[in-house]
Amino acid sequence: MDRDRLAKQLDFALTIDAEKDVIRRTYLTEHRRRENDAEHAWHMSVMAYLLREYANEPIDLARTMIMTLTHDLVEIYAGDTYAYDEAGQATAHERELAAADRLYAMLPPDQAQELRGIWEEFEANETPEAHFAHAMDNVQPMMLNDANGGGDWKERDVARSMPGSRNAVTRLGSTELANYVDEMLDKHVEYGNLRPE
Amino acid sequence: MDRDRLAKQLDFALTIDAEKDVIRRTYLTEHRRRENDAEHAWHMSVMAYLLREYANEPIDLARTMIMTLTHDLVEIYAGDTYAYDEAGQATAHERELAAADRLYAMLPPDQAQELRGIWEEFEANETPEAHFAHAMDNVQPMMLNDANGGGDWKERDVARSMPGSRNAVTRLGSTELANYVDEMLDKHVEYGNLRPE
Repeated sequence: MDRDRLAKQLDFALTIDAEKDVIRRTYLTEHRRRENDAEHAWHMSVMAYLLREYANEPIDLARTMIMTLTHDLVEIYAGDTYAYDEAGQATAHERELAAADRLYAMLPPDQAQELRGIWEEFEANETPEAHFAHAMDNVQPMMLNDANGGGDWKERDVARSMPGSRNAVTRLGSTELANYVDEMLDKHVEYGNLRPE
Repeated sequence: MDRDRLAKQLDFALTIDAEKDVIRRTYLTEHRRRENDAEHAWHMSVMAYLLREYANEPIDLARTMIMTLTHDLVEIYAGDTYAYDEAGQATAHERELAAADRLYAMLPPDQAQELRGIWEEFEANETPEAHFAHAMDNVQPMMLNDANGGGDWKERDVARSMPGSRNAVTRLGSTELANYVDEMLDKHVEYGNLRPE
């Protein structure tokens, strides 16, 4: 057994424990507290399994699941950037690239390449698995926000077009889920939680 | 599109949000706070992917991952039972069966059967996937406890045989990881964190 290899893998496994304290904007149901990245990734991955029948294209389930589980790991070093923070989004990619260099270098080279490749595939968003992983990345927080009565949108005076543009990305992965979300967003415009354009 | 089916799936997805507040005994690294079930499941599942080369038998990765992600869902209703709480363990299975009845009934029948089957497979621990999922269920908290200097074992005056018997279960899934853990546990006996028999 290659103890150096296992030591690297376990060091990486310990390091990613920090993802449990990368706090997102999204609130858990009943608005009880804000969610962390590890919880978000767990939830997305269960949902990818549960909702896979709605994927537009056939997907490799294991690849989609590890993609959802690890897509935010770079935020351990780069921090979470709120989806609607335009200034933050402008610098996020550069910060995340530097974070990926640092994080994946901990792994044995073959796994570093593999897991970094899965993250890059998610970022490029050109494969069926990346499309469906993005759909989960969007639907999961919108589902929580909807369950919380849409108050977070209202509080930040969010326009319908902002979740709407994320839903256009969801549509690449699942027309059916995007249709569902569009109806949900329209309902929140009607209720005054989302500002019409 | 079958809206009733999707509504059931999304109700289930919302309900399992509660797993993020089922608190375990295990502390995160740097002892910063106790871990919740969703974080534990996320961590186990990433580790199942990362360490799959150490499985004794070939495993279906997607099945192993959804098993690790959902194996504790019944604790939403049944609560977490500490691994070394003998009285609690004696009633845990009955409480968890009742919880499974309640939880999985929310899903469309085909998915209820499928996901309950995966949980039952985990509990029975007779397949390669269940063996490896149990290995992750044991190695993940021991890795955290080791990183925290073994203080939680010491504080509760845990005997070497208690994590030792869990490691015998790990050995069904991975001889190599069980060997690694046995050495780690011996080290903690030497340091006075685990009581020799």
